[in-house]
Amino acid sequence: MAAEETITSEPVSEAHPMKGGDGANSYAKNSTFQKGAVDNAKQLLNKVIAEKLDLEILSSPSSFHIADLGCSVGPNTFSAVENIIEAVVLKYHSQLGLNVQIPEFQVFFNDHTSNDFNLLFKSLPQNRQYYAAGVPGSFYDRRFPEASLHLVHSSTALHWLSKVPAEVLDKNSLAYNKGRIHYSNATDEVIRAHETQYAVDMERFLHSRAQEVVYGGLMVLNIPGRPDGTTHSYPFTKVTLQLLGSCLMDLVEKGVVSEEKVDSFNIPTYTMSPQELKAVVERNGCFSIETITQLPLVVLADRPNMAVPQLLAAHMRAGTEGIVKEHFGEEILDELFDLYLTKCEEHATAVETVTFLVVLKRKAD
Amino acid sequence: MAAEETITSEPVSEAHPMKGGDGANSYAKNSTFQKGAVDNAKQLLNKVIAEKLDLEILSSPSSFHIADLGCSVGPNTFSAVENIIEAVVLKYHSQLGLNVQIPEFQVFFNDHTSNDFNLLFKSLPQNRQYYAAGVPGSFYDRRFPEASLHLVHSSTALHWLSKVPAEVLDKNSLAYNKGRIHYSNATDEVIRAHETQYAVDMERFLHSRAQEVVYGGLMVLNIPGRPDGTTHSYPFTKVTLQLLGSCLMDLVEKGVVSEEKVDSFNIPTYTMSPQELKAVVERNGCFSIETITQLPLVVLADRPNMAVPQLLAAHMRAGTEGIVKEHFGEEILDELFDLYLTKCEEHATAVETVTFLVVLKRKAD
Repeated sequence: MAAEETITSEPVSEAHPMKGGDGANSYAKNSTFQKGAVDNAKQLLNKVIAEKLDLEILSSPSSFHIADLGCSVGPNTFSAVENIIEAVVLKYHSQLGLNVQIPEFQVFFNDHTSNDFNLLFKSLPQNRQYYAAGVPGSFYDRRFPEASLHLVHSSTALHWLSKVPAEVLDKNSLAYNKGRIHYSNATDEVIRAHETQYAVDMERFLHSRAQEVVYGGLMVLNIPGRPDGTTHSYPFTKVTLQLLGSCLMDLVEKGVVSEEKVDSFNIPTYTMSPQELKAVVERNGCFSIETITQLPLVVLADRPNMAVPQLLAAHMRAGTEGIVKEHFGEEILDELFDLYLTKCEEHATAVETVTFLVVLKRKAD
Repeated sequence: MAAEETITSEPVSEAHPMKGGDGANSYAKNSTFQKGAVDNAKQLLNKVIAEKLDLEILSSPSSFHIADLGCSVGPNTFSAVENIIEAVVLKYHSQLGLNVQIPEFQVFFNDHTSNDFNLLFKSLPQNRQYYAAGVPGSFYDRRFPEASLHLVHSSTALHWLSKVPAEVLDKNSLAYNKGRIHYSNATDEVIRAHETQYAVDMERFLHSRAQEVVYGGLMVLNIPGRPDGTTHSYPFTKVTLQLLGSCLMDLVEKGVVSEEKVDSFNIPTYTMSPQELKAVVERNGCFSIETITQLPLVVLADRPNMAVPQLLAAHMRAGTEGIVKEHFGEEILDELFDLYLTKCEEHATAVETVTFLVVLKRKAD
């Protein structure tokens, strides 16, 4: 970007922040699934950084810059960053000896402008070994200067599309998603509209990062996905977004919300397959694919103090309350999520999520 | 800092954020004095950057990093940053021609963790020509990696000490500041305690910045001060903090707050003289003094829609409500600031503030 151009904040991306604060319904207290992804990735992360981080990256910078994209409000982002720094320090020592001067770390926590950065900053670990900064704005646009990042991390964030595809909300389109709030149980046209949106968004993501990541720099991404060859309608979406959609339709029948209001509401998440991801990375051309590997399943099972339906309902509320409230207003929240809990109690036993660890390396031009 | 050390957040500094939000009492809407400092500095800033910014600084970085320390919530911080970028771009063009490739700008907005960063991020200019980041924590400690800043700016922030000197709150000390909330109308012992605290704080400030600013990098600081040879009790403090203190003592008489509560309350601002500043910069030894110049006086005079007393009262509330509330509780705020307004109406006509533009350059070791 030349200085004459302008950096517009979030020109097309919609923001769906996780529930802020640290109350009972907050994301900070209800992100166990997302924590599972971070924990599962830890060992692999060590291995990836040990094997894939080039010596030239280690020896060049006066400080080592890490970005966590879609960081939300913690605590998962802090564990992830600590894991990464630990792995990079290990790599320094194993590669350059125990007496090597390790550079200082600067960590950029990025999320939408509407993320609760005040809470994030207040909960920064007291004894952190890095300089912290917050960077507001969608990661589907440029957020950092050219060649300024050495390692990019993102966990359970890249399944959010930048927006609901326009045709899905268009009554006159074949892809109009009437009576549903997600594409996973919808018509082929709706699915195709989401596939296209995913490809467009990932191309924007890769194009932006290609400018920001130094040659040889790594992107370590935990992305919820589905194995190649499976359909979009699998057990997890059935008990999450599809079930929430059916609760909203129940509220239509009870006269609490209008049918039109539900028809104009879609949750823009997308579950990619490794094959799709490979295609878009290859089309972009700036990154080599170092790893795409399925992480051990995170199984949400009964706990001593909380059964699966309660856990699911708490997670669903923390993750989607913001977007639901924005569209339907605050007054339906309790009724909707109570209903959702009841339906979970009818349907859900143990549930598992599939996440892929994706490692990309910035190629030299 | 080696990676093994830890970066503690605000170990000793107290935070006194300006009033957040954008309501009638907010700092965002009541910072005209502070805006005056930014406006007055603009022309000088252009001159300073044109004359003092070395070619080697311009030609080396792939991106140009600016920090605004004590940024509060805007809009002054955004104007200041725009002025700086404009001046740097001018310098690039005049030095290296109109076709020079100007690096990208990254701007770090720094203030205490309790600053309202959510508001700051939401009000970032849409068409900004820089990448924005927020950095929480006191500027009396390290906040940035080694040699990572090219230009540091701070406006109307360095008059806040890191804390009230301990002896000022100690009943058994000669420097106990009984019956007053500020040092400016206090005993010699109280004044000396503040002079010492100022010197200690500035040494910490300079020591931290010396590590963070690249060789040749500039610090451009607007600091409220008093001319050499003047006392600490001058017209401006008389109608601001001294008057607020007398309002609190009135509330003691009315039985609204206890005398002890007022005795244990001090507002830790300090008004330096150029001589004092020079002494501490020379003792630190890492920066050359390029300029210390008094900016044109900012005169707070009657306006069409607001007379001086109202203006003063609004500024005072925006700047001190946080610290007052923390100590005395929310319930006294309206009564206190109403009383302050009444006293201003008795005392204040036009008021002027003295600010110095200080330019320091990082010397090579």
